[in-house]
Amino acid sequence: MKRWSFPSVSGVCIRDPYFAPRIRRNRTATIPAVLALLESSGRIRAFDMNWKPGDPDEPHCFWDSDVAKTVEGMALELQNSPDPELEKTLNDLVRRIISAQQPDGYLNTHITLVDPESRWKNLAQKHELYCAGHLMEAAVEHFYATGRRDFLDAMCRYADYIASVFGHGEGQLRGYPGHQEIELALCKLAEATGQEKYLHLAKYFIDERGQAPNYFVSEGVAPEKLFIQQAHKPVREQREAEGHAVRAGYMYAGMADVAAATGDTELFAACERLFENLAGRRMYISGGIGSHCAQERIGLDYQLPNDTAYAESCATISLVFFAARMLNITGNARYADVMEQAMYNGVFAGISLDGKAFFYQNVLEANEQSVPSPELHFAPVRQTWFSCSCCPTSFSRFLPQIGRYLWSVSAEAVRLNIPAAGEYRAPGRYIRVSGKYPYEGAISIEFPEGGDFEFALRIPGWCRRWSLRKNGKKLSGKPVKGYISCGRNWRCGDVVELDLEMVPRIVYAHEKVHENAGRAVLMRGPLLYAFESTDNAGDCLSSLLIPEDPAAYRVARVRGLPAGTVALKAAGFREVRRSEALYGTTPPALRKCTVTAIPYAMWENRGPCSMQVWMRKFAGERHDVIK
Amino acid sequence: MKRWSFPSVSGVCIRDPYFAPRIRRNRTATIPAVLALLESSGRIRAFDMNWKPGDPDEPHCFWDSDVAKTVEGMALELQNSPDPELEKTLNDLVRRIISAQQPDGYLNTHITLVDPESRWKNLAQKHELYCAGHLMEAAVEHFYATGRRDFLDAMCRYADYIASVFGHGEGQLRGYPGHQEIELALCKLAEATGQEKYLHLAKYFIDERGQAPNYFVSEGVAPEKLFIQQAHKPVREQREAEGHAVRAGYMYAGMADVAAATGDTELFAACERLFENLAGRRMYISGGIGSHCAQERIGLDYQLPNDTAYAESCATISLVFFAARMLNITGNARYADVMEQAMYNGVFAGISLDGKAFFYQNVLEANEQSVPSPELHFAPVRQTWFSCSCCPTSFSRFLPQIGRYLWSVSAEAVRLNIPAAGEYRAPGRYIRVSGKYPYEGAISIEFPEGGDFEFALRIPGWCRRWSLRKNGKKLSGKPVKGYISCGRNWRCGDVVELDLEMVPRIVYAHEKVHENAGRAVLMRGPLLYAFESTDNAGDCLSSLLIPEDPAAYRVARVRGLPAGTVALKAAGFREVRRSEALYGTTPPALRKCTVTAIPYAMWENRGPCSMQVWMRKFAGERHDVIK
Repeated sequence: MKRWSFPSVSGVCIRDPYFAPRIRRNRTATIPAVLALLESSGRIRAFDMNWKPGDPDEPHCFWDSDVAKTVEGMALELQNSPDPELEKTLNDLVRRIISAQQPDGYLNTHITLVDPESRWKNLAQKHELYCAGHLMEAAVEHFYATGRRDFLDAMCRYADYIASVFGHGEGQLRGYPGHQEIELALCKLAEATGQEKYLHLAKYFIDERGQAPNYFVSEGVAPEKLFIQQAHKPVREQREAEGHAVRAGYMYAGMADVAAATGDTELFAACERLFENLAGRRMYISGGIGSHCAQERIGLDYQLPNDTAYAESCATISLVFFAARMLNITGNARYADVMEQAMYNGVFAGISLDGKAFFYQNVLEANEQSVPSPELHFAPVRQTWFSCSCCPTSFSRFLPQIGRYLWSVSAEAVRLNIPAAGEYRAPGRYIRVSGKYPYEGAISIEFPEGGDFEFALRIPGWCRRWSLRKNGKKLSGKPVKGYISCGRNWRCGDVVELDLEMVPRIVYAHEKVHENAGRAVLMRGPLLYAFESTDNAGDCLSSLLIPEDPAAYRVARVRGLPAGTVALKAAGFREVRRSEALYGTTPPALRKCTVTAIPYAMWENRGPCSMQVWMRKFAGERHDVIK
Repeated sequence: MKRWSFPSVSGVCIRDPYFAPRIRRNRTATIPAVLALLESSGRIRAFDMNWKPGDPDEPHCFWDSDVAKTVEGMALELQNSPDPELEKTLNDLVRRIISAQQPDGYLNTHITLVDPESRWKNLAQKHELYCAGHLMEAAVEHFYATGRRDFLDAMCRYADYIASVFGHGEGQLRGYPGHQEIELALCKLAEATGQEKYLHLAKYFIDERGQAPNYFVSEGVAPEKLFIQQAHKPVREQREAEGHAVRAGYMYAGMADVAAATGDTELFAACERLFENLAGRRMYISGGIGSHCAQERIGLDYQLPNDTAYAESCATISLVFFAARMLNITGNARYADVMEQAMYNGVFAGISLDGKAFFYQNVLEANEQSVPSPELHFAPVRQTWFSCSCCPTSFSRFLPQIGRYLWSVSAEAVRLNIPAAGEYRAPGRYIRVSGKYPYEGAISIEFPEGGDFEFALRIPGWCRRWSLRKNGKKLSGKPVKGYISCGRNWRCGDVVELDLEMVPRIVYAHEKVHENAGRAVLMRGPLLYAFESTDNAGDCLSSLLIPEDPAAYRVARVRGLPAGTVALKAAGFREVRRSEALYGTTPPALRKCTVTAIPYAMWENRGPCSMQVWMRKFAGERHDVIK
């Protein structure tokens, strides 16, 4: 069923003005900071298996995953470029992890050290299979990075042991993960080892989920809470994306993997339905998913509050995983559009420009009244660490794999999904992309070596006008499912020039998103824009009116953001109260002002501030203006 | 210090089209329904003291207050008009309550039956002094209603016992209530009995609160949580109205009582500050207070979300108590304005037209997306009972005392605070008010008997134009602190005619209330209006644009509301999406439609619906209209 694959990250490099500087900081800032906190918090030490009851830093049930994700990130960094020092640190860490494996193949520091009685007894809460999945993903990338089989073999033994515990056989448990993740990890393990049995185990976990009698109910979960773990009904019957957002995203990605690998069209149809519900009714304009802090949960259709948005960083990344898999199964740019939207906006909003601080929740509006509790301080600010620190470690592994998603490849063809500057190289294939995407739409694609393969590129869903030239001659043709073919049989020096019209646009939400009634967002290319109090005097961003005419905006620079960052400015209005009364019959007056927007993903990098994405707007002339 | 008093409820009757029908239902519907639930839930049975561990219906620590408030309501009903059957039911109930009193005067079913060890040991959580306060209030009204002293004497014994337990003396506890209420109750007890010692105890509870070392901290309350119970600092130092809204309102009312009775200007200054912060920055336009479900808590300045408003019914009633006391201390109509705003809107929104169902939370916006949790059904609907059932029993006692607040009296003068039709009668004073207030502004005030007293009436703060005639002749003069004197030495047959201009008006919120940016409410007289999906086709009320010109509205009737109810209609617009996409670049179109508003306090009486108070608006011509 699967038509396309992503290239290995070692075959891709990125040199664009947006991703590249931030990815670079993963190695220089994010991973070192995360490693230091993994060590000081006791997460790495836990694998030495010296912890005893009463000691400080009791290993928590999801700690292993934090270490595993960081190991995966280090392995991906090595695939991007060699670094003997990093490789040594990585191999030392891998040795410590493997040393904690039990004779039967089991590996979980929390259960083994803190709560050995509950091994496999509380799948709903204990995160054992979730941690196992992350360890397997780490082992696969470690194998790809170093060629060493030690971690991979250990994780195969763990997977074999898990396969002996779970299943339909006599004496086996008919359970499945409380927090999904192992499904997609087992598919990766199957691909890396060529062992179909791991795919079968992934398929078992997916198909057993939500079957009656319900396994989690037998563990004591209340039936009305099962939806939080997507276990309220068999996954093939699920029609709405609901429950814990990260669990949902990882599970859907695993479902897509199993469907692709087994040609399971029924399972794929469930993925399509869930994707459309999620991206078509329950996704923030940033690509963030998960509307509620309570249970970190996806909301109802069109329930997308801005100031109380949860939109966990890990969840946005999980949507990229899901969309990317759907893209490679279908070759349909619909999925690339969502993947791009989430990557450029929701994902990068979660990490500071210096790579050292993170949002767990990604709100789309912040002001002194939007703080949910008087105990909290003004406005959300990024943190260096969390007691539940899934988000920082998600970045350490996601950043170095971004190159993977820019391209899709098959035996006969190469597709450019996102035209960020950089290169793709594989035997017989060498393509170089230049330009300043996402800030500018002029993209040049060169072929420094000849090769016989089809090359196609995506015309982004957001782009209204575009043109394409091959060696100076206009290429005609209509995109098919969002991709346009540029031909095959490439000779050294061939050049394809893509020009995507890059102008501001005003985007409206469906009327049922009540918070956004009468409001609009400003976008340009794949970038979502936000208005910060930093650039717009006064904290009260809800008093600003921005022009509804996209032509009113001009490209500008603002201080304190990386060189090349495109800000947008326009003449707007600010509503001014004529009284300090809480309520009154005098309408506010309007004062002319300049409104300034920056890419949403760069907000809160110049100090705490108010921020708003969905803005009030005006069309044409307004009366009652204070000059 | 206190200049004015409210008349006894027996001296007042109400015959207006708004309050009277709903008050009448308290006797015929609310009290019978509440009594049945008090009995079936075990709350009344608890006073028989037969409950044993293991029995069903374990008495809860606030149960006694539910019974006490209903007894108070029955006693107030009797003061309004005699009813031998009701009196018998009342006296039987009082006997059951008194029978539960312990030899030392203590009376609390939960502590005595369920948890005797914790008597006075967990003031922060256990509600003992709160229940005691409600029992005292009930006893006072029972005494006024029947002249019987049995309940009053029992509660004096209880108060004397409490005074022996708490105080600065050796061996006494320096505690105070976890849930305030007894402060104002002790002031009532002092007034009913003429015993100053109860006033001293009230003053002790108020002044000891929040002193260092903190008593609640000694009970284990976290210092950062003390503000929830207004115990974070001494009350005289408190400058912001915060924490649990009902506790705040009851405490402020008690502070005002103590200040008035003792001439304590410093304490009164604290009341003034807290009132201004509460009503001037933290009060919903409905007069509701308490922005957050979490800890039923007042929000920050201008933090007044509409769809997640808590605005507990009891809290709005507590604001009436506070405002009413401030009115009588100062004679300033500023307080009557807030009292009126809360009574006509926030309070009556909490109870159904049939008197049998109640809101605990009073939102200002309800739609299918505003439901906080997918487990909940669409839109809030009133309930007949709650496990924490303070709100229904608050109505049963508040409704029959409404007459009290319409008038303020002193030895020399009578003031009409709210010109609802009815009568006030006392020796040498007889005044009859006619008209259809709050629906119409023409009010006739007759003096069926002569009398030598000054008569003044309030010009409501919302009223821009008014006229006043005495026996057909125009009365000139300017209101002083919102009241205008009509003279004294009344002869039988004298008539004062007040004409308050009663036209729709558009009210705006302070710009810092972000939810209301670009929105406005429709009001007319003291009534706040709401838009229901019942009258405005389609659930999506955020798509409606209402005219900003008050003259655009016409008085109308709608089906399903009591005869005489004034609805408002105007020509407005509905935004119509031209696509089903979640996000898109096509702006919505406008379609002409009629917009219909009903009094907010009557919403959700014609089936579940969407509802919105703060509406989007338009001024003048709009383009792009679909005819």
